[in-house]
Amino acid sequence: MSLPTSLLKSLATAVGRDNLLTRAADCWPYGGDNSRLHAPPQAVVFATCTEQIQAVVQHCRAHGVPLVPRGRGTGTTGATVPDQGGVVLTLERMDRILDMDPDNRLAVVQPGVTNQALQDAAGHHGFFWPPDPTSAAYCTIGGNLAYNSAGPRAVKYGTPRDNTLGLTAITGSGHLLRTGVHTTKGVVGYDLTRLLIGSEGTLGIITEAIVKLTPLPEAKRTLQAVYTSMTAAAQAVSRIMAQPVVPCALEFMDGRAIDMIRHYSQAALPEDAGGLLMIEVDGPEAGLDAAAQRVAAAAAGEGCLEVALARTQAEVKALWATRKALSPALRTIAPKKINEDVVVPVSKMPVLISGLEKLGSSHGITIVSFGHAGNGNIHVNLLVDPDDTEQMKAADACLKGVFDLVLGLRGSISGEHGIGLVKRPFVAQELGQPALALMHDLRRCFDPDGILNPGKGLPPLPDRAT
Amino acid sequence: MSLPTSLLKSLATAVGRDNLLTRAADCWPYGGDNSRLHAPPQAVVFATCTEQIQAVVQHCRAHGVPLVPRGRGTGTTGATVPDQGGVVLTLERMDRILDMDPDNRLAVVQPGVTNQALQDAAGHHGFFWPPDPTSAAYCTIGGNLAYNSAGPRAVKYGTPRDNTLGLTAITGSGHLLRTGVHTTKGVVGYDLTRLLIGSEGTLGIITEAIVKLTPLPEAKRTLQAVYTSMTAAAQAVSRIMAQPVVPCALEFMDGRAIDMIRHYSQAALPEDAGGLLMIEVDGPEAGLDAAAQRVAAAAAGEGCLEVALARTQAEVKALWATRKALSPALRTIAPKKINEDVVVPVSKMPVLISGLEKLGSSHGITIVSFGHAGNGNIHVNLLVDPDDTEQMKAADACLKGVFDLVLGLRGSISGEHGIGLVKRPFVAQELGQPALALMHDLRRCFDPDGILNPGKGLPPLPDRAT
Repeated sequence: MSLPTSLLKSLATAVGRDNLLTRAADCWPYGGDNSRLHAPPQAVVFATCTEQIQAVVQHCRAHGVPLVPRGRGTGTTGATVPDQGGVVLTLERMDRILDMDPDNRLAVVQPGVTNQALQDAAGHHGFFWPPDPTSAAYCTIGGNLAYNSAGPRAVKYGTPRDNTLGLTAITGSGHLLRTGVHTTKGVVGYDLTRLLIGSEGTLGIITEAIVKLTPLPEAKRTLQAVYTSMTAAAQAVSRIMAQPVVPCALEFMDGRAIDMIRHYSQAALPEDAGGLLMIEVDGPEAGLDAAAQRVAAAAAGEGCLEVALARTQAEVKALWATRKALSPALRTIAPKKINEDVVVPVSKMPVLISGLEKLGSSHGITIVSFGHAGNGNIHVNLLVDPDDTEQMKAADACLKGVFDLVLGLRGSISGEHGIGLVKRPFVAQELGQPALALMHDLRRCFDPDGILNPGKGLPPLPDRAT
Repeated sequence: MSLPTSLLKSLATAVGRDNLLTRAADCWPYGGDNSRLHAPPQAVVFATCTEQIQAVVQHCRAHGVPLVPRGRGTGTTGATVPDQGGVVLTLERMDRILDMDPDNRLAVVQPGVTNQALQDAAGHHGFFWPPDPTSAAYCTIGGNLAYNSAGPRAVKYGTPRDNTLGLTAITGSGHLLRTGVHTTKGVVGYDLTRLLIGSEGTLGIITEAIVKLTPLPEAKRTLQAVYTSMTAAAQAVSRIMAQPVVPCALEFMDGRAIDMIRHYSQAALPEDAGGLLMIEVDGPEAGLDAAAQRVAAAAAGEGCLEVALARTQAEVKALWATRKALSPALRTIAPKKINEDVVVPVSKMPVLISGLEKLGSSHGITIVSFGHAGNGNIHVNLLVDPDDTEQMKAADACLKGVFDLVLGLRGSISGEHGIGLVKRPFVAQELGQPALALMHDLRRCFDPDGILNPGKGLPPLPDRAT
């Protein structure tokens, strides 16, 4: 399949010949993300401003050609994989911070700014942007908004939806849309800002974002609590979240995860560690020790082997190195991991964790769990060999069991990774028919011809009345 | 105009004959809100559960009759006034807290629960729901959600959109919709929760809400700062919001407001007070004095006459009595007040305040301003006599000037009161044509026959292509 010459000419005119790739070898790298799925686009367009993006959308719409927006490709669900072919629009060169306005606690950024670049720029003024996915050094703000990706700090500071004031976007119909406000209150018209956030590029392409900045906390305390079992650790999460001090990070790791990263860790972990929590508390220096002690007291309890407070900056770094070694370690340990990021109400964490253990052993699948326990958001990793068809079948059944378990606990199948391609088959079970049908209707309002990232996010309606 | 007998029969069957009012005298009280606008409905329905509401919507839709949902009628924009006639659905009897779940920091409430009742119930468990409009004692959670109404605490804790996890609603098409999650993260499907919040009953009728609870702060400090002029006070607001301690309330009052409530106040206010700030800081007891001092230091500066810290609970009460006396005082001082709640970025507060002063004197209109300065959300009151046609004309021109000023400062014409009937003429200027057209499209997806609160919120499109 190749694109019409007239479309390619229009695209070249819109963005300049140097910003259009059409050779298969050049396009190849833009066909994949961190899900390991891959499908090459027929063309790749680099945009540098809103007006160019508007032109690109209008041309693709005129030709009925799929258009897939993309940041740095760190997503894990295949949401930026152009599996229906077409044009990939990469936003990596839209990497300017257009306005840094500490007096109003906001910044205006282009979508290609990396999370880290925003943190650095805001940090100069004593502020930060709360969302901090593990991939913060590489991932873009546009991607964070597309999936509503948060990271550990969300337990205290919220997700992108809580930390974005307004957007500029080009809808699938080619209209330029300004949503939201430059203020922290506003109730004129419907909330299109949060409708766009988390929509995975299926409603519009975000070309600018007004993000809300938060003052950097004066100080922080880092704790590590080790438990005999993962269930004991999960019970401690419930206890911690039931007392008034809200940690700014509350990360969980199961026994297998601990074993995997044991040799990365510079902290000595007890041999019989079956579960671990990393806890951070931040705020003004005065009163912080008392807050940390309160959290430590909640962390202690049945099955707790030790609660350690990092006393030096080096100790803090060592504790976080343990946590951050996990994702890369997982990538190498098994030929493939099926990576889910389910979320349940925190009081249900112990039931989830023991349920996962049972599911793993009954299906013969190794499961490694860790993640943002303070939000009840657990990254569940099924380690599998794709060449072992029996095992893959068991993994499918196990995964279905995981989602049934999560939805039965009034949870959600994705906390922050999104749906993309890989989770689409399970979406209808969570949303139900009326909500799903309504979302399809809303999508058509934004994108009447369905050119924006087609086939992502929402599954088709099973038996829509014709 | 009277309603079809078959509709009345169906409504009586749906909710029971005792829960249906049709006599004009009985319906009268349900025709107004706090805007002083009034139009009587032909029928009033009391619902007690989601299923009844679904039936009522379906019956009204089948007959093409307008349906206006309503809480306690404390709104100020005429959003619940049935100016096109039809049925008013009052939710005041849906006043049950269905689930109080402190372990997961959430509550599930019916829309008729008053804000105060929720605060009381949550308070027993050491939690609160941050939105706290001045009318908290009477207004309902459903109303708070309909207008995204926040109050003073929003400066630190956010608005209903930041403090609601999920909703149950009946759309205008009569479908039962469950949106959102029971968790603090979730990115499956589009964010319908926040789309419904602030939509003034034009998309769906909220029948249940999962609200997010926040731990009560351990302690609080209350400060009052008095300035020679309102501009000096506005400049202090900018200084306070540019330093890291976020107050949990930062309220502003201009000189006229001070004069009006002088005799209510138990605190001695300097004779030459031209502007006043009420400031609260909350958090753990340890470190709170240091935080209050930091805020006090930012409050001091040019034009500051005094910064006083309330030392006793009685002093705190006295300070707040001053603030709370304002709205009732305003109601009696002039035959009519045109009450706006504009919002601007906080750094623009001094420009807004001096601009309002100029507009008032050039149009010969007395303006009294006060409000939630930490969000840049100022309640602007134009005092007028509706019988004085010359003055009313001048007020119209003045109001136009206020909105031009606010939008020129990248502000919004409503922070938390909403649009209803009274602000509809100004909405298009803020939103722009593409956003407004899209919102009309979205509304049709929820409510294809336009029966839900018709004519509210969105103005018609001026020159929509046919």
